[in-house]
Amino acid sequence: MKLWDKGFSTDKKIDHFTVGNDRELDLLLAKYDVIASTAHAKMLGRIGLLTKDETDSLVKELANIGKSIEKGEFIIEDSFEDMHSKIEYVLTEKLGDTGKKIHTARSRNDQVLVAMHLYLKNELAEIKSETKILFDLLLNLADKYKSVLIPGYTHLQIAMPSSFGLWFSAYAESLIDDLYFIDAAYKIADQNPLGSAAGYGSSFPVDRTFTTKEMGFANLKYNVVAAQMGRGKVEKATAFGISSIAATLSKMGMDICLYMSQNFNFISFPDELTTGSSIMPHKKNPDVFELVRGKCNKLQGVPNQLALILTNLPSGYHRDLQLVKEVIVPAIQDLRACIEILTFSLKEVRVNQNILEDPKYDYLFSVDTLNELVLSGIPFRDAYKQMGTEIHEGRFTPKRDIKHTHEGSLGNLCLNDIRKKMEDIM
Amino acid sequence: MKLWDKGFSTDKKIDHFTVGNDRELDLLLAKYDVIASTAHAKMLGRIGLLTKDETDSLVKELANIGKSIEKGEFIIEDSFEDMHSKIEYVLTEKLGDTGKKIHTARSRNDQVLVAMHLYLKNELAEIKSETKILFDLLLNLADKYKSVLIPGYTHLQIAMPSSFGLWFSAYAESLIDDLYFIDAAYKIADQNPLGSAAGYGSSFPVDRTFTTKEMGFANLKYNVVAAQMGRGKVEKATAFGISSIAATLSKMGMDICLYMSQNFNFISFPDELTTGSSIMPHKKNPDVFELVRGKCNKLQGVPNQLALILTNLPSGYHRDLQLVKEVIVPAIQDLRACIEILTFSLKEVRVNQNILEDPKYDYLFSVDTLNELVLSGIPFRDAYKQMGTEIHEGRFTPKRDIKHTHEGSLGNLCLNDIRKKMEDIM
Amino acid sequence: MKLWDKGFSTDKKIDHFTVGNDRELDLLLAKYDVIASTAHAKMLGRIGLLTKDETDSLVKELANIGKSIEKGEFIIEDSFEDMHSKIEYVLTEKLGDTGKKIHTARSRNDQVLVAMHLYLKNELAEIKSETKILFDLLLNLADKYKSVLIPGYTHLQIAMPSSFGLWFSAYAESLIDDLYFIDAAYKIADQNPLGSAAGYGSSFPVDRTFTTKEMGFANLKYNVVAAQMGRGKVEKATAFGISSIAATLSKMGMDICLYMSQNFNFISFPDELTTGSSIMPHKKNPDVFELVRGKCNKLQGVPNQLALILTNLPSGYHRDLQLVKEVIVPAIQDLRACIEILTFSLKEVRVNQNILEDPKYDYLFSVDTLNELVLSGIPFRDAYKQMGTEIHEGRFTPKRDIKHTHEGSLGNLCLNDIRKKMEDIM
Amino acid sequence: MKLWDKGFSTDKKIDHFTVGNDRELDLLLAKYDVIASTAHAKMLGRIGLLTKDETDSLVKELANIGKSIEKGEFIIEDSFEDMHSKIEYVLTEKLGDTGKKIHTARSRNDQVLVAMHLYLKNELAEIKSETKILFDLLLNLADKYKSVLIPGYTHLQIAMPSSFGLWFSAYAESLIDDLYFIDAAYKIADQNPLGSAAGYGSSFPVDRTFTTKEMGFANLKYNVVAAQMGRGKVEKATAFGISSIAATLSKMGMDICLYMSQNFNFISFPDELTTGSSIMPHKKNPDVFELVRGKCNKLQGVPNQLALILTNLPSGYHRDLQLVKEVIVPAIQDLRACIEILTFSLKEVRVNQNILEDPKYDYLFSVDTLNELVLSGIPFRDAYKQMGTEIHEGRFTPKRDIKHTHEGSLGNLCLNDIRKKMEDIM
Repeated sequence: MKLWDKGFSTDKKIDHFTVGNDRELDLLLAKYDVIASTAHAKMLGRIGLLTKDETDSLVKELANIGKSIEKGEFIIEDSFEDMHSKIEYVLTEKLGDTGKKIHTARSRNDQVLVAMHLYLKNELAEIKSETKILFDLLLNLADKYKSVLIPGYTHLQIAMPSSFGLWFSAYAESLIDDLYFIDAAYKIADQNPLGSAAGYGSSFPVDRTFTTKEMGFANLKYNVVAAQMGRGKVEKATAFGISSIAATLSKMGMDICLYMSQNFNFISFPDELTTGSSIMPHKKNPDVFELVRGKCNKLQGVPNQLALILTNLPSGYHRDLQLVKEVIVPAIQDLRACIEILTFSLKEVRVNQNILEDPKYDYLFSVDTLNELVLSGIPFRDAYKQMGTEIHEGRFTPKRDIKHTHEGSLGNLCLNDIRKKMEDIM
Repeated sequence: MKLWDKGFSTDKKIDHFTVGNDRELDLLLAKYDVIASTAHAKMLGRIGLLTKDETDSLVKELANIGKSIEKGEFIIEDSFEDMHSKIEYVLTEKLGDTGKKIHTARSRNDQVLVAMHLYLKNELAEIKSETKILFDLLLNLADKYKSVLIPGYTHLQIAMPSSFGLWFSAYAESLIDDLYFIDAAYKIADQNPLGSAAGYGSSFPVDRTFTTKEMGFANLKYNVVAAQMGRGKVEKATAFGISSIAATLSKMGMDICLYMSQNFNFISFPDELTTGSSIMPHKKNPDVFELVRGKCNKLQGVPNQLALILTNLPSGYHRDLQLVKEVIVPAIQDLRACIEILTFSLKEVRVNQNILEDPKYDYLFSVDTLNELVLSGIPFRDAYKQMGTEIHEGRFTPKRDIKHTHEGSLGNLCLNDIRKKMEDIM
Repeated sequence: MKLWDKGFSTDKKIDHFTVGNDRELDLLLAKYDVIASTAHAKMLGRIGLLTKDETDSLVKELANIGKSIEKGEFIIEDSFEDMHSKIEYVLTEKLGDTGKKIHTARSRNDQVLVAMHLYLKNELAEIKSETKILFDLLLNLADKYKSVLIPGYTHLQIAMPSSFGLWFSAYAESLIDDLYFIDAAYKIADQNPLGSAAGYGSSFPVDRTFTTKEMGFANLKYNVVAAQMGRGKVEKATAFGISSIAATLSKMGMDICLYMSQNFNFISFPDELTTGSSIMPHKKNPDVFELVRGKCNKLQGVPNQLALILTNLPSGYHRDLQLVKEVIVPAIQDLRACIEILTFSLKEVRVNQNILEDPKYDYLFSVDTLNELVLSGIPFRDAYKQMGTEIHEGRFTPKRDIKHTHEGSLGNLCLNDIRKKMEDIM
Repeated sequence: MKLWDKGFSTDKKIDHFTVGNDRELDLLLAKYDVIASTAHAKMLGRIGLLTKDETDSLVKELANIGKSIEKGEFIIEDSFEDMHSKIEYVLTEKLGDTGKKIHTARSRNDQVLVAMHLYLKNELAEIKSETKILFDLLLNLADKYKSVLIPGYTHLQIAMPSSFGLWFSAYAESLIDDLYFIDAAYKIADQNPLGSAAGYGSSFPVDRTFTTKEMGFANLKYNVVAAQMGRGKVEKATAFGISSIAATLSKMGMDICLYMSQNFNFISFPDELTTGSSIMPHKKNPDVFELVRGKCNKLQGVPNQLALILTNLPSGYHRDLQLVKEVIVPAIQDLRACIEILTFSLKEVRVNQNILEDPKYDYLFSVDTLNELVLSGIPFRDAYKQMGTEIHEGRFTPKRDIKHTHEGSLGNLCLNDIRKKMEDIM
């Protein structure tokens, strides 16, 4: 049963090609269609297109469908094109003609759109709170290991002293930037598109301000053409946020894989989080972190995937837009899985304590030693010459007890300031 | 003269390969290096690393350099690697050893970074205000042509009545969403990275809170590793904003090119804005709008270009990061050129008045006619059947005087509400 | 049961995160693992690492597994990480210790790699032959409708006469170019990586020349590090081919959607291939072609998705490489579905005959009319002036009987030459 | 002076926006326009549209222009839109009306197209031969250092012995795969599009077979619509080849940067090829290789940039297509610069000899030691158990003299076979 069925037996080939895996994805979106349909029914009652009885029975049956979804009992059989046709079918089966009236003054276009907006709002909020959990963990690890030094690299060359305190909290502070994009996407999703119908509004006197409040949207997407233009755009906005967090996680994954290599040997993880081999007992393969890296790198491409689908489509609905759902939903799931597994795994990180004792790291302190000479009053030029000679003649002894005191340096991590910055956007 | 020259004559090949077109781009960034260097000099004076006299003379000479940049007299000769070496050279030439002291407690890494942050803040603000000008024009056009109807398409099939009012203001409201990303990028850029030195801070007691205020940043990027990690990231953030506006402009470009085709013939432009041919007098090639479309489609790929450069680089500076400058600067210039030319050209748009008189558009009104029957009390099912019969028998006469009244519909554009939404983020 | 299990109970979270949907994808690849394992077993027999009996029984059991795969009876339970562990398990269950010996002198890395090469060779060959079927159809349609004229557009402006003959066969000839990339990818896949073990070869005296012939590879990928580097690369090579065909199909999809619009009305399709509405009987939504367009646009992004995963991974295996399988396999399936449905649907295309009778197309002939004057001996400059005046004064009467005779023009489609070009690469 | 000027003074804004940096790029393409114009003139003479005298004088003047281009004396002033108008202007200035006749039976569309095909053919051939030089160097280095061992990594964990012989020749063999795509792009470029005029052919009886031979094309792009569709497509084909080589070079760049890090310390380069610091004498920053990596990663995005410009453009010329030139030309230049600098620099590579003496690499040999036990007749299971115990109890002594003998292994690099594979495509 298809909503657009015209009585012709549509070839199965076409059916398979056009419907794709929509039914599976729709199971995740169905609860939002119920929320939107309930608001729509109440609104139709309010403007007199439904009687009070009709409204009440629709709202009640929608609540029942909502419960079945929550229990995992809601299924979309192959005979239905999507969740919308299935829900309408259930309503009609239970309520007869009243069930069909739910479709007054709306079209599937704005149904799909409003369900997506509600879904994205929820997912973006989840992503934000899960990112906050990872952020808190990173700050705790930074605090715990703030005095354990590691080499800081530039050009992958040993350069200056750094610390686990700096390293962990750098990723924490970086995640805050990513959340600015999650917030921007949320703002875009938090506008009600319902009432745009097929993208050109309706001659029914629908009350969009009412449904906006009823569904808890902060704002209306007023212009009905703009609302329809949001299809694909709100998903791309979400993808920018996803891509931004993913880039941060991927970079951390790369660092972790390097730091676990025997050539760095800065950190390790318990055997449960690595894979290995009996005859290569040194091997602790960082599969989890490699997959975080790889999946997050793939996620960075999602905005581009959506751009390729959307580019140069004139205004108005096109069936191509159906495809964005199968791009964005798995992307959200993958990102959330990566945040979760990284949080789960990082808890178990083991930090090596005496990394800088290796003499190959001695030169790390040369810049700071030079600075100390300068601070003690020796002109820079003379200090530089003196140290250059010492180093050249092998007489250089690094001062390892140098203090960094300025804001955000290894001696003054400003973790509370960073925490405050995060709180400002929560 | 290169800052990192070690006395070896570096092969010219290498020089050419590594420096690229940096000097040209740096001319745009030099004024921001002057601002940051001035703040840095004042801070060095404040913490006692420069005497008051040294500070004053540095600040004065930097002001002179600033003026020469403003007048377009500042040049970076081939003997200098970049603006930073040229500026330091000028200071040293004028002030001797004092000139060299400007480089105390900073490195070229954070110099480049802070200049980029200041540059991006300025450009993002410009983009925002230029977008606002386009937005205002679109709302004015929407108001002016609110009663001129056009067909609304779904699947590129004639579907429902729309209007120039809806069409123009749809793009206006859509631009607001894009500005959420410009704002997010601005927030990221509005954090001071100066003081991160080579990416691991400094043993000098620099006062980053002071330089933050001095340069007008809203916040500090505290963690020095995070600050360095911002290299590439703040450009990618900007690119998300650029990409978002570009997608909207490109879509409008596509609509315009279609609407100018003889097969639509909805709008036209004066000859100055089109190209043509004497023996094909009907031809009005929309080159300007095609180039807006094409350039904006190219701009949509900028985040991906940056991601490819940045992906899987471990933390810490890498020379690869130099390349992001040559990606983001032209992207900003191209976007601004597209916004400007579109604003310039759209002012001249000519709208055809009687588009819907063509009988091929009659069916546009079928849905509204059906809705009116329903509103008059006829059950939907009966109304639908009656209309289906009329249409089938060729007896259907569309009612063309139907009113759309709900929020954001063609009879109620809510232009002031859309304007209000824009004002909320200006 | 995991091959890399070290006796620790690996947390289920990790298991779920790392295995992903590998089992499902492996069902498609299992037959190729059987082919490669069979060749490997024979080779082990040949170099004396297996007895003749061991070899024979392995070959026989592998054949049985092959048959169960063919019948769709082969399943990979959740207790197995992938097809490789399942196949090894079956062999061991049937043959005891002999079953385990199949893994001598190889590693899962080269097992996965060789199965992928074999799979890609097969799929690329299928894509090529399916593209050939579409090509043949397009040439037949070109021949059938060679005399039906349509407007040719530049800048979406009416420009010069074109024809369905030109239009259909343009896409046919264009597909030949795409196949050059399919061929290039095939050449890369047609090199045997087996024997590279974990990416650094083996101290066992394996005979790679033997397995190369046994599996029907045209060549060896000699260097074992190069073989391992092929992971991801051979998939990206395939993706270039996919992306190339997809771009052609997507463009045709765009043309079809435009040509089906009431504003062009050049072609139509039977109701079974379109969707519509009872009260908008004119609506024939081209869902199939929109989805071909959208899916193919998404496919154009596949090389980039792979590049993002692969970029900046140092040489040697990384678990990230597992992710390329879940990108390339669905991409191949989607492309093949698009080729198939387009071939299926285009057979039913209905072509409107008298398109150019509409007077808005009159100017299409102005260039040809001018050329005729020139050919008749009037100097270009005078002819141009004369026609400009006629057009300006509304006296222009287009000559519609003009002949185009040169190679590849609408009067001389050179279909046999195009066919010949295709045959040269089949 | 613009070819499409209609007498209206086109606003300078528009001029600047539409012409862009075309003139600069055209200096590279002008010689190919001369070649194509010469062939076109001869053909016009052949079919009687020019007299012998006219043909001869055009051919002669074109040769003069060709010489001025070769000497670097050809310039395109701002008053000309592009090279085509400049060349036509020079011809007209010299030859009067005869000069204008060169434009008979062609349009700027096919002029641009044929010049691009010729340019790409030349550049692809250059890229191929430069890649061959790098290939030869890599094989020589592989031979020279074939006995110097390095660790082989999987998951960035120390895994198996490898060698510089394997490492250098892996990149050599990998480059062969990339050249398959360069060849595919070459085949596409090696088809003559001239004669397609504005994309729909011409009513003049042009002889395209003649111009095909005259310009040295292997084949005709027959269908004129297909020829026009090649605009953007032939550049994207080239971009696939560029992207493929770039991915290989970038990966090598990443390896080099790691191997130069103090944490690996496998290779180094003379000071002329690195950058450093007097007080950090250990620092040898691999700027050249980082820039090769970064530039090549950016190049990997070029096919996607082009796809974004081309996607969903209906058939027929659009001005957007002009933008592909400014994408592909710098991409070619960047790739060639990267190949050149890498070849130049790799010649100077210094290889550390005794890397594997570091005890952290001992376990590298565990797999081979196990294999040797198996080859000596001990059942795998027992050998594995015995070695596991030895390793666990710290009694494991790696056998470092193990031989790898199979094709492509570190003891049998098959350099001649790899060289043979390359010769097959040269």
